[in-house]
Amino acid sequence: MKITSAANPRVKAAAKLRERRGRDEQRRIIIDGVREIARALAAGVELVELYYFPGLATDHEHQHLLKRAGEGRGMLIEVPPHVIEKLAFGQRVEGVVAVAKQPQQSLADLAPPPGSLIAVIEGVEKPGNLGAILRTADAAGVAAVIVAGGGTDLYNPNAIRASLGAIFTVPVCAAPSPAVLDWLRARQYRMLAARVDGASDYAAADYRGPLALILGSEAHGLSDLWRGEDIASVKLPLLGQVDSLNLSATAAAAVLFYEALRQRRET
Amino acid sequence: MKITSAANPRVKAAAKLRERRGRDEQRRIIIDGVREIARALAAGVELVELYYFPGLATDHEHQHLLKRAGEGRGMLIEVPPHVIEKLAFGQRVEGVVAVAKQPQQSLADLAPPPGSLIAVIEGVEKPGNLGAILRTADAAGVAAVIVAGGGTDLYNPNAIRASLGAIFTVPVCAAPSPAVLDWLRARQYRMLAARVDGASDYAAADYRGPLALILGSEAHGLSDLWRGEDIASVKLPLLGQVDSLNLSATAAAAVLFYEALRQRRET
Repeated sequence: MKITSAANPRVKAAAKLRERRGRDEQRRIIIDGVREIARALAAGVELVELYYFPGLATDHEHQHLLKRAGEGRGMLIEVPPHVIEKLAFGQRVEGVVAVAKQPQQSLADLAPPPGSLIAVIEGVEKPGNLGAILRTADAAGVAAVIVAGGGTDLYNPNAIRASLGAIFTVPVCAAPSPAVLDWLRARQYRMLAARVDGASDYAAADYRGPLALILGSEAHGLSDLWRGEDIASVKLPLLGQVDSLNLSATAAAAVLFYEALRQRRET
Repeated sequence: MKITSAANPRVKAAAKLRERRGRDEQRRIIIDGVREIARALAAGVELVELYYFPGLATDHEHQHLLKRAGEGRGMLIEVPPHVIEKLAFGQRVEGVVAVAKQPQQSLADLAPPPGSLIAVIEGVEKPGNLGAILRTADAAGVAAVIVAGGGTDLYNPNAIRASLGAIFTVPVCAAPSPAVLDWLRARQYRMLAARVDGASDYAAADYRGPLALILGSEAHGLSDLWRGEDIASVKLPLLGQVDSLNLSATAAAAVLFYEALRQRRET
């Protein structure tokens, strides 16, 4: 079908998905960009609508995406540039924006393979940072990412974009921290929490076997819930010449994920 | 002194420093934020003006900064909120914005201690990414960062901000890639270039001794200049389940800098 007006009720409903309130009310998300939509489709995310402007959707990648989306139950909607611009976010306008059902993954559903490396991120401040961490988790083979802490807006457009779609390919869910801790204990994950006051150097730790890496936010670190006899703490060396310039959450996650991968590949 | 109008010529000249053209013409830079300015001062950057709004500069950190700046040759300028807002960038308004002489560091001046680990970043796309890499370099004890490639705008406000001021504490300079390569060869740095098609795994490489880690941009990688018999290439494992989702430059730098630090601390 074709829609030519940005005032069309469908378009207006889709535009509301850029805000959290719209996502919560409609239980849908909005995905911008050909790669991100393709990754969502590949991961089984259910498209509802795919808005496209033909003039920007001429290359092979776009054509392939339109064909695949058309084969599913999603509705292809041809729109003029000003409608795509209304739906797109950020500076990039790729000519395709999708509306999808919000993936529902609860802690109870999360079932990484036995012996996996998983990551817990508590209190992540910016959706873009969460996206960057998910992207690194994907590359490093982290089997699942649990976002701990109340009120996390997992499918914020900035998180989707910064993840380049890894938010759909890495199993991910959000849950309150106490529930996450219970989940980890019940499944007997060994827990390694990264803290600036960690008891030992990260490089001296053993990252093999079933392991949960627990990271806090840059500004607030981890809550005290993550102190306990069954939770080891590690720190990253900080050699900065000036005052306490700690690592960004993104950089800390990259270092820890790849150190874990390095050790796990050696065995 | 006090300035109350945003139309004051000094304020207008300072506001122009947010754009590259203004920085190039005036050979000055603008620094926003109390920590960033403090780090610049500590690193010997020469302040020209410090604009402050007293209502937002009440805490110890601000007072200390104003005192230090007042002791130097920089001029303290009290302004109302709307002038600070005109000068500040981003969402954060901390009540202090400094104008400083642009630090002049050329390749010829750069003299890291013998045996150092240094980093070369070629073609970095976004000032924010450069800032994030500088921040990680500071934490990991990288002795100098050379930004290779034409036209790099080192002191872009976004680079300063994302570095949290590390851009002033880590020795940094920009130069064309061929000049950087000559510089490294003349000083007999061993060179390790990170590439997606690298010859060996990054974790199998030796990072000890005088070493230059060479990183390219996320979109374009490294130019072919960085292929040669005296340049080893390494790659980071990418286990992503979908298509070629490579690491961000920030994440790749973090992994390499900390692997180097890990090995160098062991010896």
